[in-house]
Amino acid sequence: MAIPVIENLAQTRVPIDNLLQRRRSPRAFSEQPVEPEKLVSLFEAARWSPSSANEQPWNFIVATKDDHEINSRLFECLSERNRQWAHRAPVLVLVVARLHYGTTGTPNKHAWYDLGQSVAHLTVQATALGLSVHQMGGFNTEKARELFSIPDGFAPVIILAIGYADTPDALPHDLREREEAPRTRKPLESFVFTDVWGKPSRHISDASGFHHD
Amino acid sequence: MAIPVIENLAQTRVPIDNLLQRRRSPRAFSEQPVEPEKLVSLFEAARWSPSSANEQPWNFIVATKDDHEINSRLFECLSERNRQWAHRAPVLVLVVARLHYGTTGTPNKHAWYDLGQSVAHLTVQATALGLSVHQMGGFNTEKARELFSIPDGFAPVIILAIGYADTPDALPHDLREREEAPRTRKPLESFVFTDVWGKPSRHISDASGFHHD
Repeated sequence: MAIPVIENLAQTRVPIDNLLQRRRSPRAFSEQPVEPEKLVSLFEAARWSPSSANEQPWNFIVATKDDHEINSRLFECLSERNRQWAHRAPVLVLVVARLHYGTTGTPNKHAWYDLGQSVAHLTVQATALGLSVHQMGGFNTEKARELFSIPDGFAPVIILAIGYADTPDALPHDLREREEAPRTRKPLESFVFTDVWGKPSRHISDASGFHHD
Repeated sequence: MAIPVIENLAQTRVPIDNLLQRRRSPRAFSEQPVEPEKLVSLFEAARWSPSSANEQPWNFIVATKDDHEINSRLFECLSERNRQWAHRAPVLVLVVARLHYGTTGTPNKHAWYDLGQSVAHLTVQATALGLSVHQMGGFNTEKARELFSIPDGFAPVIILAIGYADTPDALPHDLREREEAPRTRKPLESFVFTDVWGKPSRHISDASGFHHD
């Protein structure tokens, strides 16, 4: 198995589960194929995520490098920027949301939200198996709709590159720098509130006693 | 720590990581409080989820039972149906999406999607700590906006009940039956496609050799 030279662990303020801390979105992928049973387990993980009224609004169009023509069609939908690195990933997956409840036909306002959950579960499963996932919003949704005959009432949301992370040596210079840069997030105080919008929760400030940075 | 009498594990077709298999959305919560350091780690897990352009569009308004008045205000927003069981959960969290990119002010079409990812990460972390999360779309979003002064450009998306799962004995009869019923999901073949919309991926059908049901 490829050993990612850059672990680039999340620098967390308090400890979180190892799977969540190790998860990252690399651009440097090895061309090593993903084992079939691992690939299926990613979708099984997505399958068991929660959703509004158990609607399960997620759909996936998957193509490995072995599905050559289909993989090329997915690749064609990507932005120029994403093509620079995604060509090495052995698996591409287009993720599509069903926008209406199957039973009633009424709009499902949580469709995109639930899609995000299913991809997060897929990503956690990937991490557990030593795989990485990079999500790309940068693609031509109308082209994807055409090339894969996606019906009305469904929305192409994201394309995933999946595979084993590799050293960033083969990346273009600017992407390599980005891959090696420290990862950043907003501080907890800026988004965990209480009482009224913008007021930091005391549970966060109280945490100063046990955080480790 | 309360020991949930009903594990109700996901009956997966192929193995998935234990955290994902154990995750479920109980309605039966113990009134046991959530330890402060565990509570903070949930938001830390959410913090490190991926998002479009690293925008991190998630905001949380959190109130434990100790934040009595604030907790009551969150509870008041819930639908009648959810109030039947959520009153026992020691923590309620309102999750709010920022709908525009902070830097450019342009609409962030992945805001809800990324919110779903952050809550999924929070939920995985909860599972790792023996906690459970039940997500509720059934609440009055306009009331929530008023009661917590949520500004324009932000959308209340979901309310989370968080705590330790309990035996379902205290639930109303119909909810108890629901809690004990087998959990169901659509088959993989119905949502993992290739080539063209609706054509099941060969990677799924090939999996018949190694699935375990």
